[in-house]
Amino acid sequence: MQEYPTSEEFLKRVEQMIVEENLLDRNEPTVVGVSGGPDSLTLMDVLNRLGYPLIIAHLNHQIRPEAWDEEEEVKRFAEDRGLRFVSSQVNVPEYARDQGFSLEEAARTARYQFLFAEARKSEAQAVAVGHTADDQVETVLMHFLRGAGLPGLKGMRSQALPNSWSEEIALVRPLLAIWRQEVLAYCRERDLEPVLDASNEEFTFYRNRLRHELIPILEQYNPEVRSVIWRTAQVLAGDEEVLERISQTAWERCLSVKEEDAIILHLTKLRQEVSGVKRRVIRRAIETLRPDFRDLDFESVDRASNFIDKPTRSFEMDLTAGLRLIMEEDRLIIAGWSADIPEGNWPQMDKDVDVLEISGEILLANGWIIQAEEVTDIEEAWEQAQVNEDPNQVWIDGEAVERSIFVRTRREGDRFQPLGMGGHTTRLSDYLINVKMPKRARAKWPLVSAGDEIAWVPGYALAHPFRLSESTKRAIHLHLKSRSHFAGNAKRL
Amino acid sequence: MQEYPTSEEFLKRVEQMIVEENLLDRNEPTVVGVSGGPDSLTLMDVLNRLGYPLIIAHLNHQIRPEAWDEEEEVKRFAEDRGLRFVSSQVNVPEYARDQGFSLEEAARTARYQFLFAEARKSEAQAVAVGHTADDQVETVLMHFLRGAGLPGLKGMRSQALPNSWSEEIALVRPLLAIWRQEVLAYCRERDLEPVLDASNEEFTFYRNRLRHELIPILEQYNPEVRSVIWRTAQVLAGDEEVLERISQTAWERCLSVKEEDAIILHLTKLRQEVSGVKRRVIRRAIETLRPDFRDLDFESVDRASNFIDKPTRSFEMDLTAGLRLIMEEDRLIIAGWSADIPEGNWPQMDKDVDVLEISGEILLANGWIIQAEEVTDIEEAWEQAQVNEDPNQVWIDGEAVERSIFVRTRREGDRFQPLGMGGHTTRLSDYLINVKMPKRARAKWPLVSAGDEIAWVPGYALAHPFRLSESTKRAIHLHLKSRSHFAGNAKRL
Repeated sequence: MQEYPTSEEFLKRVEQMIVEENLLDRNEPTVVGVSGGPDSLTLMDVLNRLGYPLIIAHLNHQIRPEAWDEEEEVKRFAEDRGLRFVSSQVNVPEYARDQGFSLEEAARTARYQFLFAEARKSEAQAVAVGHTADDQVETVLMHFLRGAGLPGLKGMRSQALPNSWSEEIALVRPLLAIWRQEVLAYCRERDLEPVLDASNEEFTFYRNRLRHELIPILEQYNPEVRSVIWRTAQVLAGDEEVLERISQTAWERCLSVKEEDAIILHLTKLRQEVSGVKRRVIRRAIETLRPDFRDLDFESVDRASNFIDKPTRSFEMDLTAGLRLIMEEDRLIIAGWSADIPEGNWPQMDKDVDVLEISGEILLANGWIIQAEEVTDIEEAWEQAQVNEDPNQVWIDGEAVERSIFVRTRREGDRFQPLGMGGHTTRLSDYLINVKMPKRARAKWPLVSAGDEIAWVPGYALAHPFRLSESTKRAIHLHLKSRSHFAGNAKRL
Repeated sequence: MQEYPTSEEFLKRVEQMIVEENLLDRNEPTVVGVSGGPDSLTLMDVLNRLGYPLIIAHLNHQIRPEAWDEEEEVKRFAEDRGLRFVSSQVNVPEYARDQGFSLEEAARTARYQFLFAEARKSEAQAVAVGHTADDQVETVLMHFLRGAGLPGLKGMRSQALPNSWSEEIALVRPLLAIWRQEVLAYCRERDLEPVLDASNEEFTFYRNRLRHELIPILEQYNPEVRSVIWRTAQVLAGDEEVLERISQTAWERCLSVKEEDAIILHLTKLRQEVSGVKRRVIRRAIETLRPDFRDLDFESVDRASNFIDKPTRSFEMDLTAGLRLIMEEDRLIIAGWSADIPEGNWPQMDKDVDVLEISGEILLANGWIIQAEEVTDIEEAWEQAQVNEDPNQVWIDGEAVERSIFVRTRREGDRFQPLGMGGHTTRLSDYLINVKMPKRARAKWPLVSAGDEIAWVPGYALAHPFRLSESTKRAIHLHLKSRSHFAGNAKRL
């Protein structure tokens, strides 16, 4: 890298990249973000010489007193070349405080918002920025040290569309294959005098340490380390593309409901995906709900992935970025803490308690009813009860319920003796956890009771003392039914 | 990491990993590679305490004079625990010289060959080695600095099957999630006195620099960098698994012929794969032909991938590991330099020249014939020639060929004036390149000539002077035909 390309060779290399990767079209304007540093000045000069119609855009970050001079300088550069110049001022320190961003993050966000707003205004095809091969290496290295998986290790792309700022206007980086030293040589040959030593030196302390301290150390381990890392990014981008394609299909397969602040995935389908794809579907859900959240680490994704395979007893997990995971039957819900999570169409009580006449019925929420009916043919009831596999209906011993039956919600201290568990009585709360009744459904789930005792948890089990026996003289048929088109097993809705 | 697990907790963690990842079975023996360093001593002690039946295997590398004492020590360790001990000696420095390996490479190869040979002899289920989480981090970092793409960045697996040494016996690493400091603490608690400071210190200079110099520096950038890198490897392994699965399908789709020293892929199908998958198919081909080649860099794979999309004029490329790429019609051949590459079923001459009687036929290699036939109905020949689209037959002007026709191979200085190119005469060699005749087929391709002049390149074009014209009084029909079941266009075979 001691011999630098001439400015003509430099032009040719950039043009080749633009053509090969189809970055820009000469018939439409391009917004170029120009800070005044060597990279962006070079980009402006090169694109102008190559005949691409440009709009030069500069954001004054108002961080340093020199910022106003710099703005003037960039303006002069543009006007000397007869190029349209647009600028804006943002008080970045203030913006950072307001948004809770770091100075770097705030400057970056303000800058791109400005550039894309200008691109929209002037109907530009793209926003071009001056990232070089060295920026790429630093980005990849930063992600490697912080841990970002493949999406981070693949670095920046020469063309990003869609990107975080637009679905239609591409973000392009025509200098991404060119080293900083080559840019500096170009500036020297073309007498371009950068306004800044390097762009945004102040608020990229970490990046500067990488650039000036760490990378030279790594070069002691492999003198070619920069090109190795650059090429690794290229190769990983190809891998990432394949994985993204697969994940897109998996996402479509697993996605069940998408709302403002909640996403519901099919749990069984998600579990069938191999772990690499499963992780990406989770990541995608988080990114969809929190598009601005930039600190997604793989620890969160990892914990979510483990939770899916081995849920905790509560079937809930705190995720990240103000999101939580909730598992309900075959649904995995990813939702904000205050999200109005779409309910299952469960049978739910509107009030605390209701009286169920025999024979008669009561109405529940979500289009459910519970019916009670005196059975006339005890023999037949006995036979039906023996073969019944529908958890939404039971036959109970009429003697055991005496006068009337209640349907009520759960109470502190409720106990339950499910049929077929050898007469073992448990706390109702434990029972509901064990049978995996959705947590959110528990408070208002209808319970059929006689006096204080629970006779039936509709959809789940009959209580042992209420079963039909050979001495039963009077039988009552209880039936939980849906009147909605969701008719089916209450547990599955 | 300042608090270390007690030896009991340590046991539990290893056992959990063995069970969760299904590494070992208590009913079958396991060969443990024990150098005498803290990692392998710990592995032996832990697996023994957990009740796995073990065979302790030690390879004496004969590099240092202490090697014999170390062998004795490891033997004593094993016998103290009532474990079977096996050992072998290899003169590693000599082996390295013979094989052209580095000392590290030679020691590694000799060691694994010994361990797997022992495992085969004793019908063991697996070979267990003592790699720790730190080894994993160092491996990943080494690959990152040298450039190895995802297959390198994913690091080592806790269970590798198949592996480079066996298709049936797994290589397992039960300590892969445990840090070196934890291993040392275990040794202290259990009074295990390592025979070596750390395994193989001598010939892992590069790795030791990473361990003692670079990683502490990286920790200044992120104190958690070791766990970050360890977790990155885990995540990337999941991604790699997905990609491997896809590449396997792509490999099956693209593979056409697999021979001793040559692989042929369907070019069109390969070109349809996205770049990440294309790269992996190429890598797979190289690995299949050169299973022992360990230095496959992505530069070679990259060049091959570019060559496939934009072949050079010669349609040949030097690859790596003594392999080359040859593009022939729809075939991509990857072959050793001296490989006997499977031929296309092209029409080829067995001798330099042959006389083609009119009417008559001559035999070519690979079951082809060329027929010449006097045409009786000139009008009909004219009409047929006008609509003919089959490059394997032509009608020529009988006046132009006078007495007889030759079929011969190419000669120095041959020129050719293809019909329909405005009477432009080119060198035959250029013409054959332009029409992409497979390079290997050119020397023996049959050329129909009259005197010295080429009248027809069968399968490609008629020469302009030999075309039928309105003044033609005598016409000859020439036909290239295959007698094999490959009948079809000569160019496509």
